Amino acid sequence: MLPKKKVSTAVIRRLPKYYRHLQSLLIKDINKISSEQLSKVTGFTASQIRQDLNCFGGFGQQGYGYNVEHLYKEISKILGIDKKKYMIIVGAGNLGQALAKYSNFENKGFRLVGIFDKDKDVIGRKVNDLEVLDINDLSKFLKNNEINLAILSVSSNSAVDTAKFLVQNGIKAILNFCAIDLDMEEDTVVEDVHLVDSLMTLSYRLEKEGK
Amino acid sequence: MLPKKKVSTAVIRRLPKYYRHLQSLLIKDINKISSEQLSKVTGFTASQIRQDLNCFGGFGQQGYGYNVEHLYKEISKILGIDKKKYMIIVGAGNLGQALAKYSNFENKGFRLVGIFDKDKDVIGRKVNDLEVLDINDLSKFLKNNEINLAILSVSSNSAVDTAKFLVQNGIKAILNFCAIDLDMEEDTVVEDVHLVDSLMTLSYRLEKEGK
Repeated sequence: MLPKKKVSTAVIRRLPKYYRHLQSLLIKDINKISSEQLSKVTGFTASQIRQDLNCFGGFGQQGYGYNVEHLYKEISKILGIDKKKYMIIVGAGNLGQALAKYSNFENKGFRLVGIFDKDKDVIGRKVNDLEVLDINDLSKFLKNNEINLAILSVSSNSAVDTAKFLVQNGIKAILNFCAIDLDMEEDTVVEDVHLVDSLMTLSYRLEKEGK
Repeated sequence: MLPKKKVSTAVIRRLPKYYRHLQSLLIKDINKISSEQLSKVTGFTASQIRQDLNCFGGFGQQGYGYNVEHLYKEISKILGIDKKKYMIIVGAGNLGQALAKYSNFENKGFRLVGIFDKDKDVIGRKVNDLEVLDINDLSKFLKNNEINLAILSVSSNSAVDTAKFLVQNGIKAILNFCAIDLDMEEDTVVEDVHLVDSLMTLSYRLEKEGK
């Protein structure tokens, strides 16, 4: 069921966690779970969980709880990962190549189908069975293939231009690993993975909370 | 100045962004900025920025705005990155090795001083001038060196045990790249970088917001 109103970012960010925990429960052959039990597993409060899931129609039954497989499938649909997603990596430096070899993406239905770079020394190299292609061929590639997502792992100073180029060529969703905030048009969605920001946040919390 | 009450996670997560933007302003020789101008640069509202900075004592002057260098230095102090932080990487697979080569950490005062793995084929390999060490020597290493942070990039199924081992050996802060939530004691701080969660969030937003 589509949400009736815009769901808050905090709720959306918790959905993948529910998905992961439900997947673990399924593997353990657990078919039924209450929000209280789900609370113990996920670390969120039972009331938080009920509230979150109510944004999408509830899925629970009073006195029964949740059917794990049903909830898992519904969350897959909500996340849009019930259908395979095709993605490319732009920027085949150390990080880009490591991400290309990261098998957890594939397990969750994200299929890497292309990897691009501008560096002549990298183009043609095989990374996880994919040959690194010339970024000059990216436009043609995007015309001939339906690509849902792009992972951006170029250097910070070419991030903005490369992102604009991707959007001009039909990309609507970018996972941004560059240490810069992309200021994109409204119909492009960007998720940032700012590694240094995470380290700085950790540093703050270590100073204030770590004993 | 230390915050009087616990600052919300959302505020803390914005601090690295302020820090990054202030650094860019300094490079451009901009010495003075109003919260309205800072709003244009960062994408947060001026009132949000004032509220966030007020958690730590304000730093602005009515009718003048903020002194960029002063604010930059104060945020460095708040984030605890005015002093060098020493870190290790545990797990020298593709991702661990890519992170070891990631120069942006060093630029922000995070100094990588050790990288560890249990795989005999990887131990002894040179990654960015550091030799990958045997994880069996980690305990001794942590006794002899003051380490502030550990990056955890082992396989998911050994993540929990490795994290416990780190904490037993004095580590108080973990940047967790494993696709699993670590359930640690209260005096250990953990920041998760869940790459697949980010992709799933992106997938959700693409379905709902992307046109």
